[in-house]
Amino acid sequence: MRVAIDTQRLWESLMAMAEIGPTENGGNCRLALTDEDAAGRRKLLDWCEALGCRWRVDRVGNLFIRREGRRADLDPVAIGSHLDTQPKGGRFDGILGVLAGLEVFRALDERGIVTQRPLELVVWTNEEGSRFAPAMVASGTYAGEFSVESTLARTDRDGVTFGEALEASGFAGDMPVGQPRLDSFFELHIEQGPVLEAANESIGVVAGVQGMRWYDVTFMGQAAHAGPTPMALRHDALAAAARLIDRLQSHALNDASGHTRVTCGCLEIPQSSRNVIPGEVHLTVDLRHVDETELDALEQRFVQELAACGESFGVAVGHERLWKSPVVHFDADCVEAVETATRERGFAYRRMLSGAGHDSVYVSRVAPTAMIFVPCRDGISHNEAEYATPEHCGRGCQVLADAILQRAGVAS
Amino acid sequence: MRVAIDTQRLWESLMAMAEIGPTENGGNCRLALTDEDAAGRRKLLDWCEALGCRWRVDRVGNLFIRREGRRADLDPVAIGSHLDTQPKGGRFDGILGVLAGLEVFRALDERGIVTQRPLELVVWTNEEGSRFAPAMVASGTYAGEFSVESTLARTDRDGVTFGEALEASGFAGDMPVGQPRLDSFFELHIEQGPVLEAANESIGVVAGVQGMRWYDVTFMGQAAHAGPTPMALRHDALAAAARLIDRLQSHALNDASGHTRVTCGCLEIPQSSRNVIPGEVHLTVDLRHVDETELDALEQRFVQELAACGESFGVAVGHERLWKSPVVHFDADCVEAVETATRERGFAYRRMLSGAGHDSVYVSRVAPTAMIFVPCRDGISHNEAEYATPEHCGRGCQVLADAILQRAGVAS
Repeated sequence: MRVAIDTQRLWESLMAMAEIGPTENGGNCRLALTDEDAAGRRKLLDWCEALGCRWRVDRVGNLFIRREGRRADLDPVAIGSHLDTQPKGGRFDGILGVLAGLEVFRALDERGIVTQRPLELVVWTNEEGSRFAPAMVASGTYAGEFSVESTLARTDRDGVTFGEALEASGFAGDMPVGQPRLDSFFELHIEQGPVLEAANESIGVVAGVQGMRWYDVTFMGQAAHAGPTPMALRHDALAAAARLIDRLQSHALNDASGHTRVTCGCLEIPQSSRNVIPGEVHLTVDLRHVDETELDALEQRFVQELAACGESFGVAVGHERLWKSPVVHFDADCVEAVETATRERGFAYRRMLSGAGHDSVYVSRVAPTAMIFVPCRDGISHNEAEYATPEHCGRGCQVLADAILQRAGVAS
Repeated sequence: MRVAIDTQRLWESLMAMAEIGPTENGGNCRLALTDEDAAGRRKLLDWCEALGCRWRVDRVGNLFIRREGRRADLDPVAIGSHLDTQPKGGRFDGILGVLAGLEVFRALDERGIVTQRPLELVVWTNEEGSRFAPAMVASGTYAGEFSVESTLARTDRDGVTFGEALEASGFAGDMPVGQPRLDSFFELHIEQGPVLEAANESIGVVAGVQGMRWYDVTFMGQAAHAGPTPMALRHDALAAAARLIDRLQSHALNDASGHTRVTCGCLEIPQSSRNVIPGEVHLTVDLRHVDETELDALEQRFVQELAACGESFGVAVGHERLWKSPVVHFDADCVEAVETATRERGFAYRRMLSGAGHDSVYVSRVAPTAMIFVPCRDGISHNEAEYATPEHCGRGCQVLADAILQRAGVAS
């Protein structure tokens, strides 16, 4: 059985949510657990209460809005994402996944459909990590990655703790973290990349998440005057860093599969001056791959290239791995449910791996999970200019509706 | 006729001067026209007055200390440099060139030698440019590069003008800038580079100054998330900048003559983040060469490589030339006088071009000029650790004495 969602109604709810915490250039600012974030949640709850849903909040503020099914003894099928934004964020990142869940509830209500399993619409707290680092901390707590105490003790820039902000927001709940258990979890999200748009496809069937590793790299050479120091006697830290960046870029660009991704996001030269040879450079390296073995090989190559670049320029090098996030494979059945729904609707799609982290990464550790991507303009997100068309939002929501209905089963 | 200078006495005057404005780690802080700078000048004047010298100050504080010769109708042969330092500067940069002049005066006095031409010991104001930008502003004013009014109006970080600081220092003179005319000018200076030390040579016979050109370079790509953006769809501003740096470094290193010098001193990524592809990079480029035609070719190559790197990475590039300082050739007779003196003393030496700017660059526009370099440890300057051995300082001073005596002529 399939139920048609209402693209126009979904769009209107997206635009209504965007009125809370608007920014100058058409984006949104609803930092986690601020008044704006709380107002966004209350608006969602108003809409859901009108549908007769009840809701609970766990101890780290994760919000669970329940649409009862025929079988109260079964674990719910869940839909969700987040409502918080970056300081100058967009109207879709996270929000689409939440309001698509609302739209599914409304579409089911309209037709008086009761599912076998209950449904849960989940709003995870502080996904962005802009106010409280790290990102996805509350879904991570739900999944057991972080303790409740450590999460509540995290502080923002002003020294306010997560726990204090949670109290102030009115969303401090008493449900133990980890409840309710979920039969499965489905998250619709904008792609945050340019692949679907470039290929003119409407849906990304997200089978997992790339493995990611983060490094801090240091180059220690010798600062010296630009003019009097011959090239051959230099120890130029920037020259060594530049060669490393260029080698890694070339290596990644030469991988015809397109699965190797290398990004150097930050480069700093302490006390730099235009006529002084840089004596010290700090560089960040972000390596990603869809295959863990290939990611190991990429790391090894990076370490070798780093040593070679240091040697070429007489510069001491060092690196530290700050973070290692393994390749995530989502649940085969859930992914299959999404792919089948997409195919049956006739939408152009591709199976793909997410390059960014999402709440689904953590949730997938404790519940069968899948994600659905829709294109966003120019691949831009975390930006006021972030945009997804009503049609793409609607298609993503439709696939979501079909997949969760298949998973939850229809009672009547 | 040759006169032996006293290496020990020179060293003692260097160490006595270093007691004024000492820094924690054995360096000096005598920013231009501060109390410390004025105290340094007064100490020098005490020493010179004891020799019977008289002195004048011009309107921008340049100090001229005269040792009379037999022929008052002839222009003086001048020795000089500067006494001001960087905020954490050393004990030799500039100071050696001034105190070597004092030592020459003392050595002549000891032997009762009168020169034909008068001698002038010159202390140029604000050579370093640390307090009032740009560097060498007062010798530049003397040479007609800057107007007196514009120099007096320059301000430090606290808004104090050069003119106000000059008044407060007690060194505001009324001699018109540009007086006295000089027969010739000789400046002894530490090399500020590693060449002489590496070659185990005592003296650099400085025949001129490298040409230098400074550029601001901009790379405008597209910021995007590191994970979801395939390599082939990126517009990575840092990747383009890194390739440019690497190409320019390789080109300079491949020049067997060693005359091509390329330095990228500053690289900035506005709003960088480790998992965001850099959308914007600002880079500085400093090109130097001893030959103006080769420097033209180097500039052309830089512009071509820049365009190619931009194209390779889909990044818009731009550059602006901020400064162009042509190759300077010092006066052949003055350079010859230095070289002859060095050879006759049997000191290991090389003819070389200065890679850094000095007061001599400006002075050479209005008077025959030459410079003498002595090695400094590890090529380090503008640093509290700056060091030159007593022996090298003495040898430099000896060459200076021999050269100016040859130039000025001995009357009795």
